[in-house]
Amino acid sequence: MKAIDETLNKAQVAFLSYKNFPGKKKAEFLRTVADEIEALGTLVSTAMRETNLPEARIINERGRTTGHCRMFADLVEEGSWVDARVDTALPNRMPAPKPDIRKMLVPVGPVVVFGAANFPLAYSTAGGDTASALAAGCPVIVKAHPAHLETSKLVAGAIEKAAIKTGMPSGVFQHVYGEGFETGQALVKHPLTKAVGFTGSLAGGKALFDLANQRPEPIPVFAEMSSINPVILLPETLSRDAAKTAGALAASITLGVGQFCTNPGLIIAIDDETLQSFIAALSTEIQKALPAAMLHQGIADNYSKKLAQALAQKGVKAEGQSSAQGNPAQGTPLVASVPAEIFLQNPALSEEVFGPFSLIVKCRNMDELHKVINRGHGQLTSTIIGDETEISRHKALLNVLIEKAGRLIINGVPTGVEVCPSQMHGGPYPSTTDSRFTAVGADAIKRFVRPVSFQNFPDSLLPDELKEANPLGIWRVYNGEFKK
Amino acid sequence: MKAIDETLNKAQVAFLSYKNFPGKKKAEFLRTVADEIEALGTLVSTAMRETNLPEARIINERGRTTGHCRMFADLVEEGSWVDARVDTALPNRMPAPKPDIRKMLVPVGPVVVFGAANFPLAYSTAGGDTASALAAGCPVIVKAHPAHLETSKLVAGAIEKAAIKTGMPSGVFQHVYGEGFETGQALVKHPLTKAVGFTGSLAGGKALFDLANQRPEPIPVFAEMSSINPVILLPETLSRDAAKTAGALAASITLGVGQFCTNPGLIIAIDDETLQSFIAALSTEIQKALPAAMLHQGIADNYSKKLAQALAQKGVKAEGQSSAQGNPAQGTPLVASVPAEIFLQNPALSEEVFGPFSLIVKCRNMDELHKVINRGHGQLTSTIIGDETEISRHKALLNVLIEKAGRLIINGVPTGVEVCPSQMHGGPYPSTTDSRFTAVGADAIKRFVRPVSFQNFPDSLLPDELKEANPLGIWRVYNGEFKK
Repeated sequence: MKAIDETLNKAQVAFLSYKNFPGKKKAEFLRTVADEIEALGTLVSTAMRETNLPEARIINERGRTTGHCRMFADLVEEGSWVDARVDTALPNRMPAPKPDIRKMLVPVGPVVVFGAANFPLAYSTAGGDTASALAAGCPVIVKAHPAHLETSKLVAGAIEKAAIKTGMPSGVFQHVYGEGFETGQALVKHPLTKAVGFTGSLAGGKALFDLANQRPEPIPVFAEMSSINPVILLPETLSRDAAKTAGALAASITLGVGQFCTNPGLIIAIDDETLQSFIAALSTEIQKALPAAMLHQGIADNYSKKLAQALAQKGVKAEGQSSAQGNPAQGTPLVASVPAEIFLQNPALSEEVFGPFSLIVKCRNMDELHKVINRGHGQLTSTIIGDETEISRHKALLNVLIEKAGRLIINGVPTGVEVCPSQMHGGPYPSTTDSRFTAVGADAIKRFVRPVSFQNFPDSLLPDELKEANPLGIWRVYNGEFKK
Repeated sequence: MKAIDETLNKAQVAFLSYKNFPGKKKAEFLRTVADEIEALGTLVSTAMRETNLPEARIINERGRTTGHCRMFADLVEEGSWVDARVDTALPNRMPAPKPDIRKMLVPVGPVVVFGAANFPLAYSTAGGDTASALAAGCPVIVKAHPAHLETSKLVAGAIEKAAIKTGMPSGVFQHVYGEGFETGQALVKHPLTKAVGFTGSLAGGKALFDLANQRPEPIPVFAEMSSINPVILLPETLSRDAAKTAGALAASITLGVGQFCTNPGLIIAIDDETLQSFIAALSTEIQKALPAAMLHQGIADNYSKKLAQALAQKGVKAEGQSSAQGNPAQGTPLVASVPAEIFLQNPALSEEVFGPFSLIVKCRNMDELHKVINRGHGQLTSTIIGDETEISRHKALLNVLIEKAGRLIINGVPTGVEVCPSQMHGGPYPSTTDSRFTAVGADAIKRFVRPVSFQNFPDSLLPDELKEANPLGIWRVYNGEFKK
């Protein structure tokens, strides 16, 4: 594809200068991106129209988007994120002298970003992937999401304006359109593309991952894909709090019409009287919840189909359903239950149903609950509802859960992803393609950088981060010691 | 394969306890591994017999192996390597309270290690992959290298003895034999295997990488594979130092019969009178170098074959060759030259010739030299011979070189890889399968760990690294600030 070739060549030319821009300049760019997004008059209404999401949610998401642009600006302006290590020479060491070696993280090159349908702002054109890649020093090519093309164009315009205002090289950010798979495939296959960020379905993410690995030069793909976010209810704690827990979970299941990657799609508990009251309370809450328009017709159709498939499985019983009748563009909240014995035999029941649905797995005892946990795939999150004393008695459970998820939550809900240094939004396959990285928070920048060592360099030829006098005043490991 | 299944199940059982061992205990284990290796009476003679490497080299390599075991012991005993981040709760934040979130690195699970033929100790059974994975908290399964099986058995015995002495769980380390590919493939394909470390050929590493990516659950493979480590000679500097540079390069080319992943296999320079004197001086040095036995007959045969292929290419001229006649088990030092114009047209000339060989690419001018650099694949190292003033005039060259290698060296040789925090032994494909990680130095541990967030955890249920009082006294990012 000639157009794609031009796009990547432009990105590469931009890269060769942009990568050397000081943190201060990149920070100015990212902060101006935030300002320009805030200055877009029609952004909220356009995004509302294209995604059916309510105003408050879009405004909140805009805040999150400008927030992470400013967070990455702060990060690169401060500068310690490059993980600088300095080991000075020992010219008289025996049997051989030790050379001076210094190391820091540098950007990998042009990054291709595929945004998410369910976050038209925060995980899309100026989303976490774009912001972290730009912060790292990588030019970004965004493949516009066809479900919110106008929103994407507005945000792309804001980024382009900010790039011009702050003197960034042309090609530091490019916005590419194209229906179907060809454009995306051509972007991932282009030899100048050095990494890919993706948020979406398991099928889509896995296809890009495979494509990237089959290139003559394989490149890393960070795809955030599929997670059903199990919530484990410990029986004693539940017996005290069944109604409160049911209320919190109902709100989490139905939040944003269930269209969150951290939606709690699986509830695992011991089948006793307490669980019966919990199910009754949860069902009551779900009955009160209203159907609402999903992001687009394709997602609504997919939800209906997957929901019908789940309910058609042997042993699955619908427990509570919104009492209002939804139209075909809407997602109707529903919770169902299934005995653990049957759940364990049917892998289809572990698949994500993207929407306001959750399946309660009823275990006869803790042994069976352990089996359900052990059988689980990788997840973005796992939650335990239990007090300190009760969890302490089930440490073996915690010990296994940690192997299955990127974030563990006690007495909370998985929805709501804080943007902060301690955030891990990622997890073992299939929740992402590489459990060693996060898509949210400052460490998201690590996906798009690689270390380079400089051996025996004269001080004047070293990057500022590694110069002997530490002119940027960043934290470094200097001869084994953390210091500024 | 039933035996492999038993091996991985044993590793997984070990993992569920070993991963929770405090750094102090893991450090004790790793230091005892070093002690037990030093106590092996027949290790040096066995390794010499199996690899044809001289005594001094084996003793040096043993020191390096015990050295990195003790380095990783220090690292995990000190404990800051887990990159702990703590963000405390803001219960009154509007519009929503901020939960307490804390994050640290945890081990990925059982790791399969394939050692290198050319480093029977330092990159093999107790090599950098094994030591870093054990330090991370991952059980290790080593597939013994058939070319130094007895050496591998001795070292495995030392590790097993150390594991028993220090009370490690059975299965924390396992040594697996097996000729052919089946055993290795079965190890990589087993669902309980969570990562792979490999050092060897491009074909071997790529095959394992593909296998790992085709699993139902893809897993990361860090394969260090193929590098020709270009050395660029800047003309003015060379005109002052041609003989000295020739001497240093000849020593690097022939060191260990050229059997180093950092062997300088490509020399790139401007074709002028200075280069002619350099080639004459280098040829004289190479003529004086003696053929020597290679690691095994397969490697010697491969060297002869690849060397003959390189010399048969159009435009390639043998410049200097050892004046002594080698036998078929030996590698004969040789340097050749080729005009850049021809080099640029023939990709075969960029392939690694594993042995004491280097190809001089003669460029008509700096433009052509830039073209040669631009065309280059990913490398472990790139070297520039040039003084500060001359390199300053060619910063564009440095700007591109950094994209092609993990380590840049000025006025040195690529052979000799320091084990220190600032070391990056890795690089863009095909030198490794993931340029974001190093195989040498403290950061090698990062290949085998992943972050996990703990949200809203009572202090008693947090790992010690994340407890509020910081009982381990490690460096952490606490509410955005680096502190102990």
